[in-house]
Amino acid sequence: VKIKVLGSAAGGGLPQWNCSCANCAAARSGPNGRGVGVRPRTQTQVAVSIDDRIWTLLNCSPDLRAQIEATPELHSQSPNASRHSPITGAVLTSADIDCVLGLLHLREQQPLEIYSISRVREIIRDNSLFRMLEQKPEQSKWTVFEADGRFEIALNSANGGIACRALATGGDLPYYVERQSTSSNDGAVVGLILERKGTTNTKVAFLPGVREISDELLSELSQCDLLLMDGTFWSDDELIRIQGGGRTAREMGHIPVSGSDGSLERTRGLQRPKRVFIHMNNTNPMVNEQGPEYRQVRDAGWEIAADGMEFVI
Amino acid sequence: VKIKVLGSAAGGGLPQWNCSCANCAAARSGPNGRGVGVRPRTQTQVAVSIDDRIWTLLNCSPDLRAQIEATPELHSQSPNASRHSPITGAVLTSADIDCVLGLLHLREQQPLEIYSISRVREIIRDNSLFRMLEQKPEQSKWTVFEADGRFEIALNSANGGIACRALATGGDLPYYVERQSTSSNDGAVVGLILERKGTTNTKVAFLPGVREISDELLSELSQCDLLLMDGTFWSDDELIRIQGGGRTAREMGHIPVSGSDGSLERTRGLQRPKRVFIHMNNTNPMVNEQGPEYRQVRDAGWEIAADGMEFVI
Repeated sequence: VKIKVLGSAAGGGLPQWNCSCANCAAARSGPNGRGVGVRPRTQTQVAVSIDDRIWTLLNCSPDLRAQIEATPELHSQSPNASRHSPITGAVLTSADIDCVLGLLHLREQQPLEIYSISRVREIIRDNSLFRMLEQKPEQSKWTVFEADGRFEIALNSANGGIACRALATGGDLPYYVERQSTSSNDGAVVGLILERKGTTNTKVAFLPGVREISDELLSELSQCDLLLMDGTFWSDDELIRIQGGGRTAREMGHIPVSGSDGSLERTRGLQRPKRVFIHMNNTNPMVNEQGPEYRQVRDAGWEIAADGMEFVI
Repeated sequence: VKIKVLGSAAGGGLPQWNCSCANCAAARSGPNGRGVGVRPRTQTQVAVSIDDRIWTLLNCSPDLRAQIEATPELHSQSPNASRHSPITGAVLTSADIDCVLGLLHLREQQPLEIYSISRVREIIRDNSLFRMLEQKPEQSKWTVFEADGRFEIALNSANGGIACRALATGGDLPYYVERQSTSSNDGAVVGLILERKGTTNTKVAFLPGVREISDELLSELSQCDLLLMDGTFWSDDELIRIQGGGRTAREMGHIPVSGSDGSLERTRGLQRPKRVFIHMNNTNPMVNEQGPEYRQVRDAGWEIAADGMEFVI
């Protein structure tokens, strides 16, 4: 299984358009804006393949057009110059703008398989902008799964597919969605366990929004080979301290990295998986490679995802 | 008046994600994907300023986040690291996804003045995704103008504002908008005449979607200093020939560049304005700087916009 990280920041990206904090300023400095100490990062976007020919996206970020063009494997390559894309599907883990807006970069009448829980499908079906995905019959083919359900992706690959399992990982419906007083928001955000069965089983966890790491989730993670884990915030009150108000990291559905019940501490016993933080907010001090937080995370055996990273598992 | 071209392609950009035609393939080749003969272009986006301090966007393209980061003048520069942006407003010339999606790159609770005709305002107000622009009171402040109306932008600049006039230039409501059988779609797309009064009057026309150049419009353009003109298609049947069906350029609200009643021929008598084509579709042969169409356009005294171009008028 090949996993490409096309984007690794939380919503807004790093730098964020209206922010000039130390992280954002550092990410904008240096030759060609390549960053000094802090690498610029587009909004989180992952692509998965088993044959380098057919790719499935994990979420569809607002930066997707540039992310595709920065990734030669994802370029259109049709010998007869008609429309073509190696991207055949996208799994959505929530209805957040950061997760779904990129669907609109995939217009132009190209067929696409979309996978999500039913609530996310409804939100998108009910929003007129996404009619661009239904300009011709069967342009979008939707597979709905439960918040603890199973489904398969990349089935049209000559090498078979990838088995997926969804896990409800906390987190609410996004701000823009009208709350339905009669229904719970539980399961509005999921993580994914991707499994490729072969001579050896290969398991990858994609968890960009995790409120808590329960013992059950921890046991799940201990059997994975690669873990792409929620690295949004360093501390629970990070945004409150910076903005002077608002919600804690956990209230936003994100376990902080630091602290006695943070993700770093909770995962200390993990042996098997390669551990990579993804979805870093521009406020997270661990993106500064000259700082103590970065050192602490690396010393604990974690990597911090950057755009362009690739993992072959 | 300073005019920056942040993006110069039509919807989908050049290259377009699912296209590998000769133009798209050429735009993807060369060192660092800088293109050979065809320059890569993001989706049309213009920014205007009179003092280099406060900028108004003309439309909000789907590529806006990357376009802002590629333009140092538009970077957040707050001495006290709180939220700030030199971008204070955006004028929308239609409800097309290419014109409005970038509003969602401008979330994060930053105040923004938005200018549009009332139908475009309604479409955006009625779409839940754009609630992200109303997370706090007065985050978005809307100015509505008529399809032939006047308004002023960048009023908060120390140097005064820019007078704007809208012109209905043909073109329908976009595909995603439910048609209202009781009302006409006329005036769904406008062009803009920007005027800066000073010791000498300065006039700029921004016309990314023009169905016909009437004698009246021609007379208007003859008094401008800079003309950013619809360069979407080279010929009226361009998409039909390539896709084997669909609509003509004019049916889509775009006068073709070539032909006896195309924009090149219609504007042949213009003396005063600097003439620049913008909003080129990936199918337009004139983006190939090694081809005869490019030579024909340049010989007629026109430039073809590319990302990063700047005009000071």
